[in-house]
Amino acid sequence: MAHLLLINGPNLNLLGKREPHIYGSTTLHHLEQELISFANERGAALTCFQSNHEGAIIDRIHEAEGKYDGIILNAGAFTHYSYAIRDAIASVSVPVVEVHISNIHAREPFRHQSVLAPVVAGQIVGFGLAGYRLAILALLEIKGRGDK
Amino acid sequence: MAHLLLINGPNLNLLGKREPHIYGSTTLHHLEQELISFANERGAALTCFQSNHEGAIIDRIHEAEGKYDGIILNAGAFTHYSYAIRDAIASVSVPVVEVHISNIHAREPFRHQSVLAPVVAGQIVGFGLAGYRLAILALLEIKGRGDK
Amino acid sequence: MAHLLLINGPNLNLLGKREPHIYGSTTLHHLEQELISFANERGAALTCFQSNHEGAIIDRIHEAEGKYDGIILNAGAFTHYSYAIRDAIASVSVPVVEVHISNIHAREPFRHQSVLAPVVAGQIVGFGLAGYRLAILALLEIKGRGDK
Amino acid sequence: MAHLLLINGPNLNLLGKREPHIYGSTTLHHLEQELISFANERGAALTCFQSNHEGAIIDRIHEAEGKYDGIILNAGAFTHYSYAIRDAIASVSVPVVEVHISNIHAREPFRHQSVLAPVVAGQIVGFGLAGYRLAILALLEIKGRGDK
Amino acid sequence: MAHLLLINGPNLNLLGKREPHIYGSTTLHHLEQELISFANERGAALTCFQSNHEGAIIDRIHEAEGKYDGIILNAGAFTHYSYAIRDAIASVSVPVVEVHISNIHAREPFRHQSVLAPVVAGQIVGFGLAGYRLAILALLEIKGRGDK
Amino acid sequence: MAHLLLINGPNLNLLGKREPHIYGSTTLHHLEQELISFANERGAALTCFQSNHEGAIIDRIHEAEGKYDGIILNAGAFTHYSYAIRDAIASVSVPVVEVHISNIHAREPFRHQSVLAPVVAGQIVGFGLAGYRLAILALLEIKGRGDK
Amino acid sequence: MAHLLLINGPNLNLLGKREPHIYGSTTLHHLEQELISFANERGAALTCFQSNHEGAIIDRIHEAEGKYDGIILNAGAFTHYSYAIRDAIASVSVPVVEVHISNIHAREPFRHQSVLAPVVAGQIVGFGLAGYRLAILALLEIKGRGDK
Amino acid sequence: MAHLLLINGPNLNLLGKREPHIYGSTTLHHLEQELISFANERGAALTCFQSNHEGAIIDRIHEAEGKYDGIILNAGAFTHYSYAIRDAIASVSVPVVEVHISNIHAREPFRHQSVLAPVVAGQIVGFGLAGYRLAILALLEIKGRGDK
Amino acid sequence: MAHLLLINGPNLNLLGKREPHIYGSTTLHHLEQELISFANERGAALTCFQSNHEGAIIDRIHEAEGKYDGIILNAGAFTHYSYAIRDAIASVSVPVVEVHISNIHAREPFRHQSVLAPVVAGQIVGFGLAGYRLAILALLEIKGRGDK
Amino acid sequence: MAHLLLINGPNLNLLGKREPHIYGSTTLHHLEQELISFANERGAALTCFQSNHEGAIIDRIHEAEGKYDGIILNAGAFTHYSYAIRDAIASVSVPVVEVHISNIHAREPFRHQSVLAPVVAGQIVGFGLAGYRLAILALLEIKGRGDK
Amino acid sequence: MAHLLLINGPNLNLLGKREPHIYGSTTLHHLEQELISFANERGAALTCFQSNHEGAIIDRIHEAEGKYDGIILNAGAFTHYSYAIRDAIASVSVPVVEVHISNIHAREPFRHQSVLAPVVAGQIVGFGLAGYRLAILALLEIKGRGDK
Amino acid sequence: MAHLLLINGPNLNLLGKREPHIYGSTTLHHLEQELISFANERGAALTCFQSNHEGAIIDRIHEAEGKYDGIILNAGAFTHYSYAIRDAIASVSVPVVEVHISNIHAREPFRHQSVLAPVVAGQIVGFGLAGYRLAILALLEIKGRGDK
Repeated sequence: MAHLLLINGPNLNLLGKREPHIYGSTTLHHLEQELISFANERGAALTCFQSNHEGAIIDRIHEAEGKYDGIILNAGAFTHYSYAIRDAIASVSVPVVEVHISNIHAREPFRHQSVLAPVVAGQIVGFGLAGYRLAILALLEIKGRGDK
Repeated sequence: MAHLLLINGPNLNLLGKREPHIYGSTTLHHLEQELISFANERGAALTCFQSNHEGAIIDRIHEAEGKYDGIILNAGAFTHYSYAIRDAIASVSVPVVEVHISNIHAREPFRHQSVLAPVVAGQIVGFGLAGYRLAILALLEIKGRGDK
Repeated sequence: MAHLLLINGPNLNLLGKREPHIYGSTTLHHLEQELISFANERGAALTCFQSNHEGAIIDRIHEAEGKYDGIILNAGAFTHYSYAIRDAIASVSVPVVEVHISNIHAREPFRHQSVLAPVVAGQIVGFGLAGYRLAILALLEIKGRGDK
Repeated sequence: MAHLLLINGPNLNLLGKREPHIYGSTTLHHLEQELISFANERGAALTCFQSNHEGAIIDRIHEAEGKYDGIILNAGAFTHYSYAIRDAIASVSVPVVEVHISNIHAREPFRHQSVLAPVVAGQIVGFGLAGYRLAILALLEIKGRGDK
Repeated sequence: MAHLLLINGPNLNLLGKREPHIYGSTTLHHLEQELISFANERGAALTCFQSNHEGAIIDRIHEAEGKYDGIILNAGAFTHYSYAIRDAIASVSVPVVEVHISNIHAREPFRHQSVLAPVVAGQIVGFGLAGYRLAILALLEIKGRGDK
Repeated sequence: MAHLLLINGPNLNLLGKREPHIYGSTTLHHLEQELISFANERGAALTCFQSNHEGAIIDRIHEAEGKYDGIILNAGAFTHYSYAIRDAIASVSVPVVEVHISNIHAREPFRHQSVLAPVVAGQIVGFGLAGYRLAILALLEIKGRGDK
Repeated sequence: MAHLLLINGPNLNLLGKREPHIYGSTTLHHLEQELISFANERGAALTCFQSNHEGAIIDRIHEAEGKYDGIILNAGAFTHYSYAIRDAIASVSVPVVEVHISNIHAREPFRHQSVLAPVVAGQIVGFGLAGYRLAILALLEIKGRGDK
Repeated sequence: MAHLLLINGPNLNLLGKREPHIYGSTTLHHLEQELISFANERGAALTCFQSNHEGAIIDRIHEAEGKYDGIILNAGAFTHYSYAIRDAIASVSVPVVEVHISNIHAREPFRHQSVLAPVVAGQIVGFGLAGYRLAILALLEIKGRGDK
Repeated sequence: MAHLLLINGPNLNLLGKREPHIYGSTTLHHLEQELISFANERGAALTCFQSNHEGAIIDRIHEAEGKYDGIILNAGAFTHYSYAIRDAIASVSVPVVEVHISNIHAREPFRHQSVLAPVVAGQIVGFGLAGYRLAILALLEIKGRGDK
Repeated sequence: MAHLLLINGPNLNLLGKREPHIYGSTTLHHLEQELISFANERGAALTCFQSNHEGAIIDRIHEAEGKYDGIILNAGAFTHYSYAIRDAIASVSVPVVEVHISNIHAREPFRHQSVLAPVVAGQIVGFGLAGYRLAILALLEIKGRGDK
Repeated sequence: MAHLLLINGPNLNLLGKREPHIYGSTTLHHLEQELISFANERGAALTCFQSNHEGAIIDRIHEAEGKYDGIILNAGAFTHYSYAIRDAIASVSVPVVEVHISNIHAREPFRHQSVLAPVVAGQIVGFGLAGYRLAILALLEIKGRGDK
Repeated sequence: MAHLLLINGPNLNLLGKREPHIYGSTTLHHLEQELISFANERGAALTCFQSNHEGAIIDRIHEAEGKYDGIILNAGAFTHYSYAIRDAIASVSVPVVEVHISNIHAREPFRHQSVLAPVVAGQIVGFGLAGYRLAILALLEIKGRGDK
């Protein structure tokens, strides 16, 4: 049975509470419940974590070693400058899938570059909340086949 | 029933014929058959196309209008400079999912930028051939829910 | 009697079919008919050509040598990277007038640079479809006076 | 009846007096007379103005509001750095057509960028003195059809 | 016996027909005949191909696999932006020698960079038509000695 | 009879002494002997010179005026910054052929630019030691035909 | 009655303790007391917060929603790279006024850019500690008039 | 009693006359009257000046020496390129406060840089017309306390 | 007796646990013990601290004021973007020696720049774990001689 | 007899009045008198002009045609951005010598580039007020010998 | 017994003779004597060399092969552009420690980059003359443990 | 009596021997003789030196300390990259005047930047050989008045 970890970064705690005309009424809590069910239906367990603190995200990535089969990471704005999170990803053997809800390439120039991208297993961008589900499927494929 | 179109760009006709230690023995033909089955099992039809000619890819994107519910596009190296393909994508209403087999952000600098990315529905990068299957799932979600 | 050649590049075949709120209902076919009449009224013949293939546009520019008195070229997105079309323009003695329907300087940064501009006879930007008519007049002036 | 304003910027007062092997013997005065006739023949009035002073050009653009149907502007070297003239153009509702006698894209790099271009109605580059006549025609089209 | 393939890219079909004061009266046909003789005298066969179409050049490079011992490639302006041709070169095991007739480093800045150069066997620049003969000799050395 | 001068720049004195798995056991002395023979067989004389001193290379280029028919120059790392050697090449009428053993475009970014390239007769890159022989042949062509 | 929140970022806890010849003997505690009085005199309440932790500042900005009428933010060095704080500001409806004690444009180049500036209500730079008082007045104006 | 000088630069004469949905109906004249009253109420005199001429603004800054206790300067688009105004500010001992009505950091890239900023006493950005009042208060603080 | 503080930044807690073929089996704990002994043998006391939290590192640098004679800092990836840590270093009078285990100049481009370097007492790069010992010696020299 | 024109640009009217510890007590008036004498002693006449207005400087350069044998120009900050003055210099046949009192290359980066430099006869930088005297001598040499 | 070589580059011969308020009265000769003693006390021999000639430094690095166990190199300004010295370092197996007396990262931008850094064993920056002693200790560690 | 030193850098030994249509028939020897006379007539002695070796020029600048009152330096192409010569100039107290025969700002981009300029006493550019005479006069002024 696969154990997966979902890490959401800064400002994602506000999901569903702000700008509902854009993101709908799905709160982070609701999304996490939905993804846990989605994972369970596919025989996997999902643990959820959110923090606005870069250090806390790094700590959590370190702790994932040997405990999880994969990490789904939406690092929010840290995506664009946190070389410390990048090094954390590179220092564990757990595969990390990078998810972005919106199409970061269609937004401000600073969002076009992910400093994490060169060290992740794969990247899923622009599919809204469905991107998280695709990431779960991707990690299950990676675990099932080892074809990363 | 969803009708999807798979477009593979330059040099992808050589898939499975070259560098088998990297890409395995799956040829483009084999991949296409597998993806057609994968789509069929999910109640969708998949048409496959490959070309090394930029103009032929543009023509095919135009023709997709009103005929397909989604396009899976791996534009190969055109990804990095074909503003003409970008305009073709922007000029049709069919959602396009951009797929890259390898992690383009972990390779040469010129591969880090996709000129297509700002106008696609979403981007799936680095999952090997599994990325195509994720793209099919993504397009089925988009069609089923209209939540793009 | 002047013989002019109109070359429209990638995605311009969709003119009038897409985004009518922007471009109106004038299709490429309709535009071409109108411009042929406009030219005829001024004693000139106009031949029309459109292609999404860079190579086909280059071939056509080569063939214009000795056959046409001027080329009206809207190279679409090729404008921004096709050094091959640039070399084709530079290699024929027929004067080429570069036309852009929209104001390329008010759009995305990649559209601000024309790699063709340094080798054309002149450039007409931002006047909508009227730009084609101005280009015909410009070529007739060039032919009539040789004051290029 | 259309009322048009021609504004020539710095150093254009020397037209025809310097480098006759390049520009011929047409002085600015002569050009202005010719253009006034050209406009009159098409049922339009043309007022002419030249200044080497950036502030005077801005003042004149402001005064054009409500008085003219269009401005033909060759801002000379101000084209490349006068964000103040750009703001003046953006602050009036009169359409402005930017004209350059020579092909600025075939000259020194600093001349390749026009800071005015993003806010003008259209741009005509490289046709010699004929560019002014094309600009008059363009403004008459814009007025006649409102299709800017 | 070595079998070599000569590929000339966009606008090289005009060789000898345009600007004879620069390139002399040697047409592409004549050059090809001369090079075939030059190769034959050294016990090698040479096949010649020219196209203005990027896709056609890629197709031809693919077909060379297992059929030719070396490719002499003057990609014309594609040299400066065709990452698709670069990938084609990298995907075949046939050694490719890049030739430029003129000294590209003494011309416009955009010609200073070859995106093909990192993946070719070697580069010969600036020797006029003699560069093609040197490329044949280079490929014969590579084949004879395997000292690439 | 042609008189040629071979100039090898900094660190090339170590050829064959270091990293034999890369460069083989050919020392600079051995290479020079081989090239002298190669030149002699083609009726030319070859003089060889190596220095790690930029000034000494400049002095030698100056002295070549009127004494040699061509210079084969591998300036080593000076290639990338010695504008003084560039000026020396430009100040003599002897044609200079620039040689690089390795493919400098496939190495570190600083090696991609040659500040000498704009002023040499031609450039031969990436053919290993065979590049020196090709350079001799190139200079003999230049002398024989004057078609530089 | 307006409720305002003052957030001081990294290293501002050392105010008045270090470099008194530059900043005087006003400690952060003293400044906060003074600003509370200044606010009270104008009928407003001021809450003060300082942290060297980016995550703590983000948390505090989130909590301000619905509780405060305005935030005065001196983000210290985070100003120049914390896109996470920028997103936090953009995700709340409370107006934020950015304050810098020194003239950041007269210091090291990295201090010239504020990544927060595009999303704040306004910016006050270079007035020393008086800048905080001006920010309070600015927020009271914004609240009083709603003319942001 | 403090004597202050307000200088508004190019295009600010159109304030309130253009784009009333953005700027309201406050004309420059009205704003100046309001600011004079605002200053008077605080025991200060305010003189107002507007010009579209860079040279006139420089002249006025020079004349302020010894006559005014502070200058409030909105240099309009000159902000972004007038190094001559910058030098004028640096050459007088009168403190200058730079004001921008809109948030220049949220607009076009060319507006993000102020070439004046490094030499002014302080900068107030983005508060609408209230910014002028804050600037008056700032100058009164500077005068009163000398704590610039 | 000198009191020194060792601060290790993000991901250095994993030292010796990951990639033992590169870093050997020395864990951070083991390294700290070794360095404490090394310091003691030279009559100095060493306190050790590690954190993945930028804010915690800043707090610790502040607390060092008046308590330690020197800080040895390996800020990990924060080295490349934490201007907040830079300001912390600049705001205390304790000399800070920057250590990097690997040669950061031989790795990815983003690691070539240290934003801390301009404000540290000195930098020791590339000597593996021995760099920490050299840093202790350097701080003892600085304390002993005051020759910083 | 040579007739020379001295043009001083923006802020140079303040010479000697401001920062006497740097520039001494020589006012612009005094400098001009001194230079007139210096010129007279060498048989030349010198006319002096100063303006803070770019347009006035352009007008004066135009008027110099046919009236003066040389212009000594210190364009102040216009040096760094006035392409309009550059064009004025290029459009007259009078040789212009560019003078800078201070060493512009040892000051802020924006002062390192002179947009005028490519079109002047020569440049004299960094010699204080003596630079004006050297410029007079330079123009007398140019006139006397025509060896420009 | 270890044999070490100290190489000081351009202008370091003036050490102690110029700017004694900065560098003290220690001349290069004195420093060399001190370092020889320091090495001897640790059972090592030190040979000293200084040159202002790039070529002489390259020659000396070559000669060190097989003769020395380590090189201490302060290449002075060659640090910033001598790719030839870089290649010399890379071509010998002797470990090289790069020393800079001052903190090059706190000085002019051109001094921030060392083109040598990617190929040295380690770098010691900013410790004044003590840096040379640390370099000796570093080389003795490298020799003693082979842990480079 | 003033003692001056003239240093000419790389390739200037060829003066008058090459490209006489540009430089006339004045050889370096002849120029030196002329300048010695010119200096003598003004009561100064001039010593002349030329070298193509960067190190030799540095040595000569060092030796000038205490022996000469000024140096006239045309560093040829070293001007654009020799930070070692720059440091030599900065390390002596003798004033150095930089001379360039041609207008370096009107030539190739790499010649626009002088890395020496920030540390010289002054710069004289573009006056042909007359520039050397002006430099002598400048140094005599500097010596006579001490107003550097």
